[in-house]
Amino acid sequence: MERILIALLPDFVGKEVIVKGWVHRIRQLGGINFVILRDRTGTVQTVFQKSEELSGIRNEMVVEVGGKVVSEPRAPGGIEIHVNSCRLLGDVYYGTSIPLEISNQRAFDRAELGPVLEHRPLSLRNSKVQAIFKIESELIWAFRQFLKQRGFTEIFTPKIVASGTEGGAELFKVEYFEKTAYLAQSPQFYKQIMVGVFERVFEVGHVYRAEKHDTSRHLNEYLSLDYEMGFIDDEQDVIAVEIELLKYMFSHTKKVCGAELELWGAEVPEFDTIPQITLKNALQLLEEKYGKRAKSKADLDPEGEMLICKYFKEETGTELVYITHYPTSKRPVYTMPDDKNPEVTRSFDLLFKGLEVTTGSQRIHDYAMLVKNMEKFGLKPEDFDFYLQVFKYGMPPHGGLAIGAERLTKQLLDLPNIRMAALFPRDRTRITP
Amino acid sequence: MERILIALLPDFVGKEVIVKGWVHRIRQLGGINFVILRDRTGTVQTVFQKSEELSGIRNEMVVEVGGKVVSEPRAPGGIEIHVNSCRLLGDVYYGTSIPLEISNQRAFDRAELGPVLEHRPLSLRNSKVQAIFKIESELIWAFRQFLKQRGFTEIFTPKIVASGTEGGAELFKVEYFEKTAYLAQSPQFYKQIMVGVFERVFEVGHVYRAEKHDTSRHLNEYLSLDYEMGFIDDEQDVIAVEIELLKYMFSHTKKVCGAELELWGAEVPEFDTIPQITLKNALQLLEEKYGKRAKSKADLDPEGEMLICKYFKEETGTELVYITHYPTSKRPVYTMPDDKNPEVTRSFDLLFKGLEVTTGSQRIHDYAMLVKNMEKFGLKPEDFDFYLQVFKYGMPPHGGLAIGAERLTKQLLDLPNIRMAALFPRDRTRITP
Repeated sequence: MERILIALLPDFVGKEVIVKGWVHRIRQLGGINFVILRDRTGTVQTVFQKSEELSGIRNEMVVEVGGKVVSEPRAPGGIEIHVNSCRLLGDVYYGTSIPLEISNQRAFDRAELGPVLEHRPLSLRNSKVQAIFKIESELIWAFRQFLKQRGFTEIFTPKIVASGTEGGAELFKVEYFEKTAYLAQSPQFYKQIMVGVFERVFEVGHVYRAEKHDTSRHLNEYLSLDYEMGFIDDEQDVIAVEIELLKYMFSHTKKVCGAELELWGAEVPEFDTIPQITLKNALQLLEEKYGKRAKSKADLDPEGEMLICKYFKEETGTELVYITHYPTSKRPVYTMPDDKNPEVTRSFDLLFKGLEVTTGSQRIHDYAMLVKNMEKFGLKPEDFDFYLQVFKYGMPPHGGLAIGAERLTKQLLDLPNIRMAALFPRDRTRITP
Repeated sequence: MERILIALLPDFVGKEVIVKGWVHRIRQLGGINFVILRDRTGTVQTVFQKSEELSGIRNEMVVEVGGKVVSEPRAPGGIEIHVNSCRLLGDVYYGTSIPLEISNQRAFDRAELGPVLEHRPLSLRNSKVQAIFKIESELIWAFRQFLKQRGFTEIFTPKIVASGTEGGAELFKVEYFEKTAYLAQSPQFYKQIMVGVFERVFEVGHVYRAEKHDTSRHLNEYLSLDYEMGFIDDEQDVIAVEIELLKYMFSHTKKVCGAELELWGAEVPEFDTIPQITLKNALQLLEEKYGKRAKSKADLDPEGEMLICKYFKEETGTELVYITHYPTSKRPVYTMPDDKNPEVTRSFDLLFKGLEVTTGSQRIHDYAMLVKNMEKFGLKPEDFDFYLQVFKYGMPPHGGLAIGAERLTKQLLDLPNIRMAALFPRDRTRITP
């Protein structure tokens, strides 16, 4: 007999079936022996005739259960299985007690993040934890789907690189045979090169930052959702694509992950457009409205990001806002200066509920201008030989951005810590599991 | 006026249009001045009235051309543009001559691989080179599409890891703050852990092998297309999914990349099923049929792989063949031994035109059995603590495989060197561009 997935059982009421899955929970209630079974599609209550049959059964064992599907209004979901046979497929070896109560949501929610990450193979089986990664994978799915429809080509660029894209600090070193190499901080140089080939490209891949931060919003290995597009007028073309992209990503996720969003009490943002404010005006607004004096004119601090989002949420109802025109001195060397005011750049960050989730800009596409800018930044053009090469062969005006997948997921679900949005997070001290 | 993509020009005959792209070629023929323009959708012939207008124009410049679309049977594609205006969008800086003739296919085909890779930003603009990566991206697109339809969940697992999955040799070392970490050889351990969560998972990501090989079929960083599935009977369930998957990947690619396949004179394999032969029988066949004495009973050598494929091509018409039942001592510790003969494993490789493109197996899912196997292999179970953890909490019988994306593309297009199937290949000596 073929295995029936649990979610499909309502179509089999009155019939004999085979179900396979994990022992999610065992309950003995008023002389009745219940085993809640879990598979990838959900859970179902199974009823064992005699308590002896339950004697060897323990949580998380993998079993194959045969029985009859019966309508039972008191059962969760309105059906249960009356068990005829039970066969062990995968045994457990965790001693007397399981370290995390993954089937008891209230108990699980009280667990500290430390043990949750330490026992990752187990904690990932909790349904709310699973929901995070279903949502994340659907967001990424929609990212690709949307861009492909718009004529973007998917690319895969190397993560072992000879030099950094943004100076050289904060790189992880790799012993590459006789050479020293680094892990890529971003696919920046490569995606620009690929604009010269396919005009519009995107990449979903890991990037690496050897930052010593140990905060709730930094990971040392994270998933970067990148796109880069040629033949733009300016950075506003890049922003316009992102606004439509985010609408698509959110509406797709709402459509296919309704139950998962509900588990977290989350709602996807709905908006027509996303407001913009220059960094200068944002700093001024913070001072006038909240009496907040900026320590730096070059960026917003975390509190400033929170307040700006609060302000726009109150004024416009949206939880997303673009900060634009960051100072030239504080943006990477390849960022296009604003022709009206070269002190600032055609750059932007997107804040979502108080956290930067995107950073992007128009890039410099003229070789001579880029070389001059490198010299102004104190960089040696000869160190960027392979990157500069592409600008010798004709590049269109272009720009792009990168979205942090874990940050987007964290903000969407209001997770308190970004580590919760990575299957196996890498942080300041963690390289296992 | 909005830019019109070149492929859409036939709909605009008789109309004024704006076209943007690269100067692909300049020709002066019988007093007529032609510029072939290239964008991401193709090329078109444009006609300039006076030769003076062409004076500054050079190959690979990025330009915006305005003019009228005219039907012209003698032009390639049957149309040309009579130019009214031409504006420079991106200049070139390559001195007197361009190092690779990307618009002259016959000249380009004669170029050595060395300069082609060294001038990668330029060589990728050649249409046959572009075709490789369109095909590769569509193969990967179809890989994901098919598996998602079959209930697989996409995962993203860390590439910075604490230990190897297959012993420990051939790992790239990473300086991870105070610790030593490594680049992942494969997502093996993580995808197995995720079978405990989502039952069926897939991942598309880079993996790293610090192998000193410098051959036409090895890369040190390559794209691994992985899947892993639970609740299988044995390795034949894994193979059955791959056969349908490959059919889907090939037919999708044939549908959307017809022109690109034609550029390479390639045809996708069409088959109902894929034949299988045990390693033992394959070695015997090589000896009987081709007089080839095996140096090792543990694997086929490259010549053996070629001959086996030749044999099955002649016998069954297919270019694909599974080699099964590799010896236990030669497969990773997590490979399930065959219960009928524990000297061999429930493992397989898929050969495609004489090259291994897939390796897979059923895995050991029982904790006690896996620990015992580790000891038999001389490994310390305590070194695999986090991996062993998952087997304490109940794992279903499961298995999976990995397809090398660049190898699959190489074999499909009969590329002489695997470096041609990586945008920016990483090999024994190459970490740039």
